[in-house]
Amino acid sequence: MALNTRKTSRLLTPFAQQIRRYAAPGEGTVPPSKKKYVPTSGTYPVGFVVSSTHVGVKASNTRFDDLALVASETPCSGAAVFTKNKFQAAPVTVTRDMLKRRGGKGIRAVVVNSGCANAVTGRGGIEDAVKMGEETDRWFDGEKDDGLGSRSVVMSTGVIGQRLPIQKILSKIPAAHSTLGSDHDHWLATARAICTTDTFPKLLSRSFTLPSSPNTTYRMAGMTKGAGMIHPNMATLLGILCTDAPISPDPLQSLLTAAIDKSFNSISIDGDTSTNDTVALLANGAAGGKPIVDTSSPDYAAMQETLTSFATDLAKLVVRDGEGATKFVTIRVTNAASYTDAKRVASTIARSPLVKTALYGKDANWGRILCATGYAEGVDSVIPDQTSVSFVPTDGSPELKLLIRGEPEAVDEARAAQILEAEDLEILVRLSEKKGEEAVYWTCDFSHEYVTINGDYRT
Amino acid sequence: MALNTRKTSRLLTPFAQQIRRYAAPGEGTVPPSKKKYVPTSGTYPVGFVVSSTHVGVKASNTRFDDLALVASETPCSGAAVFTKNKFQAAPVTVTRDMLKRRGGKGIRAVVVNSGCANAVTGRGGIEDAVKMGEETDRWFDGEKDDGLGSRSVVMSTGVIGQRLPIQKILSKIPAAHSTLGSDHDHWLATARAICTTDTFPKLLSRSFTLPSSPNTTYRMAGMTKGAGMIHPNMATLLGILCTDAPISPDPLQSLLTAAIDKSFNSISIDGDTSTNDTVALLANGAAGGKPIVDTSSPDYAAMQETLTSFATDLAKLVVRDGEGATKFVTIRVTNAASYTDAKRVASTIARSPLVKTALYGKDANWGRILCATGYAEGVDSVIPDQTSVSFVPTDGSPELKLLIRGEPEAVDEARAAQILEAEDLEILVRLSEKKGEEAVYWTCDFSHEYVTINGDYRT
Repeated sequence: MALNTRKTSRLLTPFAQQIRRYAAPGEGTVPPSKKKYVPTSGTYPVGFVVSSTHVGVKASNTRFDDLALVASETPCSGAAVFTKNKFQAAPVTVTRDMLKRRGGKGIRAVVVNSGCANAVTGRGGIEDAVKMGEETDRWFDGEKDDGLGSRSVVMSTGVIGQRLPIQKILSKIPAAHSTLGSDHDHWLATARAICTTDTFPKLLSRSFTLPSSPNTTYRMAGMTKGAGMIHPNMATLLGILCTDAPISPDPLQSLLTAAIDKSFNSISIDGDTSTNDTVALLANGAAGGKPIVDTSSPDYAAMQETLTSFATDLAKLVVRDGEGATKFVTIRVTNAASYTDAKRVASTIARSPLVKTALYGKDANWGRILCATGYAEGVDSVIPDQTSVSFVPTDGSPELKLLIRGEPEAVDEARAAQILEAEDLEILVRLSEKKGEEAVYWTCDFSHEYVTINGDYRT
Repeated sequence: MALNTRKTSRLLTPFAQQIRRYAAPGEGTVPPSKKKYVPTSGTYPVGFVVSSTHVGVKASNTRFDDLALVASETPCSGAAVFTKNKFQAAPVTVTRDMLKRRGGKGIRAVVVNSGCANAVTGRGGIEDAVKMGEETDRWFDGEKDDGLGSRSVVMSTGVIGQRLPIQKILSKIPAAHSTLGSDHDHWLATARAICTTDTFPKLLSRSFTLPSSPNTTYRMAGMTKGAGMIHPNMATLLGILCTDAPISPDPLQSLLTAAIDKSFNSISIDGDTSTNDTVALLANGAAGGKPIVDTSSPDYAAMQETLTSFATDLAKLVVRDGEGATKFVTIRVTNAASYTDAKRVASTIARSPLVKTALYGKDANWGRILCATGYAEGVDSVIPDQTSVSFVPTDGSPELKLLIRGEPEAVDEARAAQILEAEDLEILVRLSEKKGEEAVYWTCDFSHEYVTINGDYRT
């Protein structure tokens, strides 16, 4: 039996060195190669305050902040998108109900714990999530009770099938409220508090303008965490985006839904979808200017472009931190009969273990890319002798053609090896010679470390 | 950058020891743990002869047989099922056309080379596949030319995007014909010749009877190869089944199609589907008895049961030899609203990298199983609070319940660890409390060795 050999090999030094430390979120020791993705300053939206607090949701976490609070100083518009998994965690159910009940109006805060997902926890879990929201509300003075219940978005990430230590969490919400602040250090610490197996906090901010108020500067900030799931956790993709632009709830939801489709729903670490995935967007209008009240204005279109681009940059950070990832791979499928076909092909390539292990091995294996293109489900428009595959280097040098209209090229192996040495790579699949629809997906490779992380024993 | 660390770690001894030797098919050194799956005798169908011959399709292969020939002594019925990949290899196209042209009648042989897949090779590749079939035909004397062209099924497996060394292959077909024989050693050598990255040859045989001829003994033999794809190969699932029962082409095709759906189409190594996958079934009627000419007879039903069971046992051998596999996992989904729903859920669990790495880590991670159940695409009938998950040991001891109607059980970790130590395991997912449809899938785990094998540089 090979089992003993295998068991031993997993404990050997090279893997041990690569293993992430799971004990606590926000470990703080960012790997040197990831430091460039952690901002040292930012431009944050007016009227939002944030904080991070230590609870110790996991008993083993005695040091690191695991409670995050993001609040608007005034009631604001809120929207969210959720996992499509049939097994939805309690905070997903509670937040969805809350936004529906309020019509996305009068939202005050997002409260997040890491360390426990509050998933598959039955009725008790629902009650815990409701309590987290209500206790958060209580600290925003002067809010008149409008009979619509909680005003807080609730998120949880961490171990599945365990109840939250709810009293510990509730007892720390006053501290979370009293330490709210708006400077860069507050935002970065808050972004760190939502992490689980992430190796670096994921935070972005930017300024923008809208056509109807060209002299008004708006700001947007967002934090996210990923990526992949780590046992016995079901780690989760969470995102919290805030803007001081004035946007009504209805257009806010449609802006977010469209932006997520091309960003957070266009990334893949391992193809698994967690029970807790949630991305929320708050807009408090604190910067003034003309409100966006419907989907027909030029402001709406401009806002869509800004939001989609911003959400895409945030989502890419999740891929950068994919469990065990050594590569950041853009998969671009062009000249497709429809956007749906293009996205299905891109998604199938992004999820193929054979493509992902070849990328880990720095191997110009166009055969596996072609093969995944050919078995994408629900796609009828793939025609072998019209399909071309190239590697596109991200340094601006010319693409390396691997397959042209179904015919293999004689590949310059030295050039291929050079391209594959880089961390970043684009795989370009043209489904025809005619102009058509395009979809982009972002993914990472499958490494030994992925197996080590996800095959590890519970501790 | 972590790249150098990673690169070094891949060259360390524990992996090097586990790496399969890719240089040639039929290496012959079966790992000790797999020896029990290689038969030392068999009962083979009357009127079939087989052989294996060395060609050296890969220039580096100077020793191992890589050409297999399976022939019926008389013209027989033939049927086949093929990959659904859009990029179909030349032998797939040529064989499909041949069977259609002949209506599955008058088939004489199956000719297979390993070492080169003849895939994505354009018009020249088609011509090569046609030549392989025609040259094979030529050696079956006395065959009158009926104007319908070749009578041979052609299969190839190995590197993609390269032309076959067709002259070398054609020059060895006379030798393949002259060494045809029907004893166990012939069958085993032939099963070995179709292998690529397989660690053991996969051959089964059995006897059976049919209701209308209770005193006639029929025999069936089959060989197959898998599993997963190895760079720069696109290894392929091939299967060749022969029986001396008398079955007309139409019922033969429907028997095979139904059997494959519950056997070869219910296994997953890595979720990738190759360009060359082909399973062929020949029936020469040499054992006599009443012919099966339609789908309505009791003989047909009995034959279906025998064939499905036989094909399932063959398909399971492919999973036993999954690249890097340390576990053999049966996924049984019961009490479903439909067979399709059950199969989609089973397939989704079987393909989840998180489930597969947890199994490698011997981890009772029901959360990942539940999560995969919840994101199975196209399934509307999953209801969280009616879903139960158990581990079923294969030693006959009682099941270990992990989740009952959506509520987590307090898991006996010692018992779970004991169950997960075994090579074989069944995961049982009950989608409701009501009797319903059932689907079974077989899969293996994802190990470091899988990544090593598939991330390896081309040599």
